[in-house]
Amino acid sequence: MADWSGPFIAVDWGTTNRRAYLLDAKGVAGDVFEDDLGVKAVASGGFERAVQDIAARLGELPMLLAGMIGSDHGWRQVGYLPCPADLDDLIDAIAWVEGRRIGIVPGLSVVQGTRGDVMRGEEVQLFGLARLAGGDRARQTVCHPGTHTKWAWLEAGRVTDFRTAMTGEVYSLLREHSVLASVLGHEVKADEHFLAGVATTFAGAVLTAELFSVRARVLLSLMEAREASSFASGLLIGCDLRAGLAGAGEDPIVVLGRPELTRLFAAALEHCGRESRQVDGADAFVAGMHAIRKAIA
Amino acid sequence: MADWSGPFIAVDWGTTNRRAYLLDAKGVAGDVFEDDLGVKAVASGGFERAVQDIAARLGELPMLLAGMIGSDHGWRQVGYLPCPADLDDLIDAIAWVEGRRIGIVPGLSVVQGTRGDVMRGEEVQLFGLARLAGGDRARQTVCHPGTHTKWAWLEAGRVTDFRTAMTGEVYSLLREHSVLASVLGHEVKADEHFLAGVATTFAGAVLTAELFSVRARVLLSLMEAREASSFASGLLIGCDLRAGLAGAGEDPIVVLGRPELTRLFAAALEHCGRESRQVDGADAFVAGMHAIRKAIA
Repeated sequence: MADWSGPFIAVDWGTTNRRAYLLDAKGVAGDVFEDDLGVKAVASGGFERAVQDIAARLGELPMLLAGMIGSDHGWRQVGYLPCPADLDDLIDAIAWVEGRRIGIVPGLSVVQGTRGDVMRGEEVQLFGLARLAGGDRARQTVCHPGTHTKWAWLEAGRVTDFRTAMTGEVYSLLREHSVLASVLGHEVKADEHFLAGVATTFAGAVLTAELFSVRARVLLSLMEAREASSFASGLLIGCDLRAGLAGAGEDPIVVLGRPELTRLFAAALEHCGRESRQVDGADAFVAGMHAIRKAIA
Repeated sequence: MADWSGPFIAVDWGTTNRRAYLLDAKGVAGDVFEDDLGVKAVASGGFERAVQDIAARLGELPMLLAGMIGSDHGWRQVGYLPCPADLDDLIDAIAWVEGRRIGIVPGLSVVQGTRGDVMRGEEVQLFGLARLAGGDRARQTVCHPGTHTKWAWLEAGRVTDFRTAMTGEVYSLLREHSVLASVLGHEVKADEHFLAGVATTFAGAVLTAELFSVRARVLLSLMEAREASSFASGLLIGCDLRAGLAGAGEDPIVVLGRPELTRLFAAALEHCGRESRQVDGADAFVAGMHAIRKAIA
């Protein structure tokens, strides 16, 4: 039987990278490491060794894994827990490996009529956010920007609903493989061009038409190439906000995630007249894993 | 001085392939060939030989080239002719090589305020369509579906305006490089799933959110994988129609291009209650090149 009363390891294991934390009852015990051994970089059959590698670095301790490690491309496939769901539901659905020494946290799913959605990894941050914010609040809208942005609704500590926009992935596809590749090499900033992109989307522009126009504007000298990345990002984040705000009330939005992304989304929200509060996703992840440990100890 | 009174060669030279026609005063003189020597497949400095190769196959004749061959990735960069433009304007802007033996047709551009758009290759089909349809008509909306769908407006033989939606390219990016790759391998058909995708877009769905949901629906068994390609294509073609119909009147739309694509777009238009007429793009290209030859002979 594993001992969950002391220090443990928590891993946010995504598609392209993983981040592992050594945690104890007081918080982060010091060691954190991040590398590019996301599930895409681990060969089938190589996960046992990839897990042992973490223990070799941080200690032979109990371990909680979240994210794509529990998907059909990961180590062990752990199902999706249907929403609404709270932290107790999540803990009940943890898949245990080696007795109770390693736990793999499930993802969440939502079905509404013919619409369906799934998440993996963000659920730990969402439940952690509820703890950071002092627990049970009225309905709250959370935006978690990223490769697949998640807009989630929390109510009294439960995730009641969520929806995804593949904002970051579409931007990467355009920058790496599309006719826009040559004009999307610049850094995205929350500048006037970014906000013009957001405004263009909210004015009713059609994304696939407006994106092509970015290249045409540069070709015709209507836009500088260095402005194109921020404008195109503004178009995509504008769509993201349109998808999320359709389900949001008037309350301030919590923007949860990596600070370089939450800044962009907060600027876009402000441009739409919406208040927001940024929370670092790493803090929320640690808080969520602590809450899980406390419940299973 | 080249003799433009007899047979000549017309080439539709795109990014990924080229199609060359041997034409005479009566029409297509017989030989047509298509290969994958699009401008992307020809090394810089290799265009002279790629052009000679056509003459070796079809004869040492005068030649008209249209499409990406005139772009900065092609043989000789030929500018964009600003709209509104008619066939005479296009002919005046042809770039001549080897005296007047080889002509490269320019593309078209449009600027409206800060919006800009460009096309290369479709302009020959558009002017050809005007000839096929019996010449000068009132305002007509033309949809040319493809990698970059062009919606164009013709008035009395002039192209007055156009806009692009990067429908085909976004679909290819998703099928080849995205998280949806595993569910987009099936043939797209104008079936109920395709029409459901079109309807979902017209009901106000946000593209980047609805696309992710396609994968989630398959994961959650709300949709069969074999239905996903047609549904996702319907979402994208729905966006395409939203962009184009915003500038269209109530008249029937001419859908011009490859028959396998015009069929899909005609079905989507019908689902939106819009009449359309399909015209084969190859016929329009030949008609356009004939009209150019006649004017320069």
